[in-house]
Amino acid sequence: MKLMRVGPKGQERPVILDADGIYRDISAHIGDLTGDKLGAETLTKLQALDLSTLPELDANERIGACVANVGKFICIGLNYADHAAESGLDVPSEPVMFMKATSAIIGPNDDVEIPRNSTKTDWEVELGVVIGQEAKYVEEADALDYVSGYCVINDLSEREFQIERQGQWVKGKSADTFGPIGPYLVTKDEIADPQNLDMYLEVNGARHQSGNTKTMVYGVAHLVAYVSQFMSLQPGDIISTGTPPGVGLGMNPPVYLKPGDKMKLGIQGLGEQQQTVIQG
Amino acid sequence: MKLMRVGPKGQERPVILDADGIYRDISAHIGDLTGDKLGAETLTKLQALDLSTLPELDANERIGACVANVGKFICIGLNYADHAAESGLDVPSEPVMFMKATSAIIGPNDDVEIPRNSTKTDWEVELGVVIGQEAKYVEEADALDYVSGYCVINDLSEREFQIERQGQWVKGKSADTFGPIGPYLVTKDEIADPQNLDMYLEVNGARHQSGNTKTMVYGVAHLVAYVSQFMSLQPGDIISTGTPPGVGLGMNPPVYLKPGDKMKLGIQGLGEQQQTVIQG
Repeated sequence: MKLMRVGPKGQERPVILDADGIYRDISAHIGDLTGDKLGAETLTKLQALDLSTLPELDANERIGACVANVGKFICIGLNYADHAAESGLDVPSEPVMFMKATSAIIGPNDDVEIPRNSTKTDWEVELGVVIGQEAKYVEEADALDYVSGYCVINDLSEREFQIERQGQWVKGKSADTFGPIGPYLVTKDEIADPQNLDMYLEVNGARHQSGNTKTMVYGVAHLVAYVSQFMSLQPGDIISTGTPPGVGLGMNPPVYLKPGDKMKLGIQGLGEQQQTVIQG
Repeated sequence: MKLMRVGPKGQERPVILDADGIYRDISAHIGDLTGDKLGAETLTKLQALDLSTLPELDANERIGACVANVGKFICIGLNYADHAAESGLDVPSEPVMFMKATSAIIGPNDDVEIPRNSTKTDWEVELGVVIGQEAKYVEEADALDYVSGYCVINDLSEREFQIERQGQWVKGKSADTFGPIGPYLVTKDEIADPQNLDMYLEVNGARHQSGNTKTMVYGVAHLVAYVSQFMSLQPGDIISTGTPPGVGLGMNPPVYLKPGDKMKLGIQGLGEQQQTVIQG
């Protein structure tokens, strides 16, 4: 299933995208796509619905983030060897974890704001993993049981705030609009192998990132198990699993976003995002 | 006012602590102490209530965290010069910011779990600042307008996870139970000067931390304004403002928590917490 939230900001309704690309309103069945609706039981019920009987919503509705009320937005750093190299850093001996403020979350095609006093706003296409069931001290072999599905994430990053402004990357990862999520949450049954998905990101039509999740240093199952050793994961939490090479910081000379730029990014099977950059 | 949440975990009811120390149930008036209830308008209404007419709750009820559904749990590092010194680090030239998982939040007197594979679980008494109104790019001169009140926080920290396990402190700050908050949110009108509050922490009756918020490197107003340059703050977000000297890491040799230990900590005018340490 492809689960989405569409409508004006703060008034999104949950829908299933049907085989014909029609938004089928499921708000009468689940209220909203909050974490507590992402477990196997609810998903099985949704899968049993006759979509043709559900109300259609306008195909031109704005798309919101595909999960509502995300509790934790956890990111993994330097998880593609080539990206670590372009950042001038070694591949870490175990996953590097940081947080992004949940207030940064926006819809996949909403405008991205360059924060005030920023000169180094950068892009990062990433595979997002959405938790469906509470996970605490889980084993790698069981870890995918706790995953509800996958989505596209743009992990926007202000490199000066992240690296040059006194410790801890969260400072450069958390500005409002720095977390476009979606367009849809694709349930894991539709993704045969999360470690073999092509991904890309373009700015103004120029391809900057081209990668595949098969070159992740630490795969999805390892990451879920790993994170769960340090904090419990709740349904609706999202782990963004790191970015392949091609970020602006890694270019020579570095290139950063400016107002009017258009980003387009996507992951195989998970859809595409398009954002226009504006001054915040 | 002293605002609290009392009752079993997940079923807390909001109360005002009256002058006689009686819990006065305000759930009929505000539902729960979520961020959207912490603004000036709601607080003014609560202040006008005749407490003697409100239902009393049992004085022996468990105390929960004094804010429900915290969106962001933001911490400031190395914000007391003496604590930076005991950690072997310089005072930062601007505030160091990191995140704690909101899933770490517990009541002020709940048990604290040592995470599995931990040998370096440590304590940190801190002044918590609770946001009452959305703050984005605010000035230091206005910053306290966005604050609802203050509370005691124990910023529990696993030093190996934080420092020795590959980058980004959040890894050692986020275990379940690592964020006792409360007992009460004291509205700012009751705190004449947040930069002159005595604070302390004891383990098994031995005083380890003794400090006063007057020795903060960056004060509350500066911190609120500073953080709001990097991310917007929503009502119910909490900023934990750093710890004075006397943590286990700074002792010679370092001393860490073990099952059965009893912590007691408090801040002038904001009440006390008491936790028993257990193995997680």
